[in-house]
Amino acid sequence: MLWRRLRPPAVAAYAHRAMDQSETLPQTAHTHAVFEDGLLLECGVSLSQLVVAYRTYGTLNAARSNAVLVCHALTGDQYVAETHPITGRPGWWELAVGPGRPIDTDRCFVICANVLGGCMGSTGPRSPRDGATDGTPWGTDFPPVTIRDMVEAQRRLVEHLGISRLFAVIGGSMGGMQVLEWAASHPDMVFAAVPIAAAAYHSAQNIAFHEVGRQAIFADPDWQGGRYWASGRIPARGLAVARMAAHITYLSEEALTRKFGRRLRRAPDIKAGTTSLFGDMFEVESYLRHQGSTFVRRFDANSYLTITRAMDYFDLAAEHGDDLALAFRSTATRFCIISFSSDWLFPTAESRAIARALNRAAANVSFVEIASDKGHDAFLLDEPDFHRTLAGFLAGCAEHAGLA
Amino acid sequence: MLWRRLRPPAVAAYAHRAMDQSETLPQTAHTHAVFEDGLLLECGVSLSQLVVAYRTYGTLNAARSNAVLVCHALTGDQYVAETHPITGRPGWWELAVGPGRPIDTDRCFVICANVLGGCMGSTGPRSPRDGATDGTPWGTDFPPVTIRDMVEAQRRLVEHLGISRLFAVIGGSMGGMQVLEWAASHPDMVFAAVPIAAAAYHSAQNIAFHEVGRQAIFADPDWQGGRYWASGRIPARGLAVARMAAHITYLSEEALTRKFGRRLRRAPDIKAGTTSLFGDMFEVESYLRHQGSTFVRRFDANSYLTITRAMDYFDLAAEHGDDLALAFRSTATRFCIISFSSDWLFPTAESRAIARALNRAAANVSFVEIASDKGHDAFLLDEPDFHRTLAGFLAGCAEHAGLA
Repeated sequence: MLWRRLRPPAVAAYAHRAMDQSETLPQTAHTHAVFEDGLLLECGVSLSQLVVAYRTYGTLNAARSNAVLVCHALTGDQYVAETHPITGRPGWWELAVGPGRPIDTDRCFVICANVLGGCMGSTGPRSPRDGATDGTPWGTDFPPVTIRDMVEAQRRLVEHLGISRLFAVIGGSMGGMQVLEWAASHPDMVFAAVPIAAAAYHSAQNIAFHEVGRQAIFADPDWQGGRYWASGRIPARGLAVARMAAHITYLSEEALTRKFGRRLRRAPDIKAGTTSLFGDMFEVESYLRHQGSTFVRRFDANSYLTITRAMDYFDLAAEHGDDLALAFRSTATRFCIISFSSDWLFPTAESRAIARALNRAAANVSFVEIASDKGHDAFLLDEPDFHRTLAGFLAGCAEHAGLA
Repeated sequence: MLWRRLRPPAVAAYAHRAMDQSETLPQTAHTHAVFEDGLLLECGVSLSQLVVAYRTYGTLNAARSNAVLVCHALTGDQYVAETHPITGRPGWWELAVGPGRPIDTDRCFVICANVLGGCMGSTGPRSPRDGATDGTPWGTDFPPVTIRDMVEAQRRLVEHLGISRLFAVIGGSMGGMQVLEWAASHPDMVFAAVPIAAAAYHSAQNIAFHEVGRQAIFADPDWQGGRYWASGRIPARGLAVARMAAHITYLSEEALTRKFGRRLRRAPDIKAGTTSLFGDMFEVESYLRHQGSTFVRRFDANSYLTITRAMDYFDLAAEHGDDLALAFRSTATRFCIISFSSDWLFPTAESRAIARALNRAAANVSFVEIASDKGHDAFLLDEPDFHRTLAGFLAGCAEHAGLA
């Protein structure tokens, strides 16, 4: 009987052993720059002080012309190519950044900053609010930030490091949005731009998925209206649900099927009538739950709210008279637009639209769709065609820039 | 400045005015049949009593040969073609069922039963548990049910109504799973079968989306381990999040873009620094929140858990030696398989796989993909090509069945 093979073990439902709500996020020291003149945000609010946490890899050359800014995605951070200080896991882009890698730290000086609004040392909802003498954090009173604000914070850092022009700005997903914003706002500071698995605006479907995640956080009473620092309890359950929903969108149906199919996690229990419907039964469930529970140990719920909103706001054409080509008018930047065939969150059509706008602006642009069944997350994974494309484009640009 | 156009009004976050948790589901009287001999479920548990709530439309002919069973989807119910007793809204399939409609109640006797495990009168988690003298409901102790169990409950009803053979069994989504199970388990009782926007198994991605919904319910403290009836509080926030996540999968990106795009819901507020990031800003968010908040007024969270699990378990080929063709061996049933081009939850490829299995079984099968940009929910909407296909197939079958 089908059922016999499917019966789950008689375990307590995962919900009851899910997350330890008393866990709070670790306070970790991060390398950072402090800008005491603060930052005026697009929303009109002025932050009295700006902190940008960052990491660098490789050596800046004497001409200060080999700097590459890597922009991280929604839940990424500055630990690109080294062990993560909280999770102890490898850097999120070690496949692409390092000695002999496509973004070669033997030749380039790589910079990555935690985004404004983030939770790994840059100014964000975890930072003490302006005027607070007791260190009370902003929480959800942190002002709304935009992708352009994030870029502005990065620009401060880049100039602080004595760099007036970046050899390249590179990033995937939200990182790709930042790349586009950099190229549009500071074309003279960007020799080459590589937006990967990105789009020039956030679509209705993507806003909808973000909204589900936010509602999951709001629905967790431990969110406490965003003022959860006082109680020592964090909205771990809501944030985990948000992460789980988002994680599905980072994969493709093919990838999920290949990885998990309908495989069951445990041997069936033969005793009838003692079943629990809700323990993890299918491997895919166990995987998703793991994604949710590990995420809450390294990410702040208010940062998740702030950064998802920044992505939702993003609409580069709207900033330029609803014509994306105008965003790149007279640009001298060299672009390489990269998409992945099975990415349904930022589908190839969105990258093609960017390439077309750049064509209309008579920009120097190449566009590559990488055949992959790994979905949106392909840019983080071992995709040799992608890495060859990235390495090839950067090598060509290095020659043009006189770096070769 | 972009931001000026995007600034949300200074309203309290939606989360705080979201759902009235003290709302409980209304108790409504439903037409039903009671089977005192109960039902032995696939899991081995025996329900001591089986109640099947149902509605009928049209008149059974003297030969009792014009009965059409309509099978509802995950969150549907028996109110197919009449005003819903709780919401006051039209029946969920009035476009397809009624006088002169594709499923013509002037000619057919249409039956629709609330599924086993449901919350609209059939035996389910809201029913008094076996042995309880005080009416204590099953809650999450309700035994796991399968699509086959649902079909078995329907079969009891059909025989109770004096019908030994159905002219047609028709349903979309989970209803289509039931149609396939009917055709496989009781081929002699099914003259014609129309599985719409369905699949012969639940995919890893679909299981993953269901799991997110279940985790959202578990994360709501008002779920109270499933025993929420005692407190008078229901897990409205968790269930609303589950509904919101699911609802995105019922639509297509095209449909969301056409309906909402990036349109803002309200005029921007001009006062700086008083913004709330989290009120509904984009129309798509407002729409999703509405979907979530109305859903919890008519649906039981424990039923949602039970029925999503039933869908996850479904794997018709696995019940037949991993060969779907064997499920339909020697069938005389006439099949019409219908899919929608933009349905990514139950994509056309799944319907095609069913059609191929039926071909291998030498069954009488036609397969139609309807061009539509409305996504999975297209089967519920005004799709003239779909309705013509359904009407045409049923007219042909009526002729063959001697009903014309």
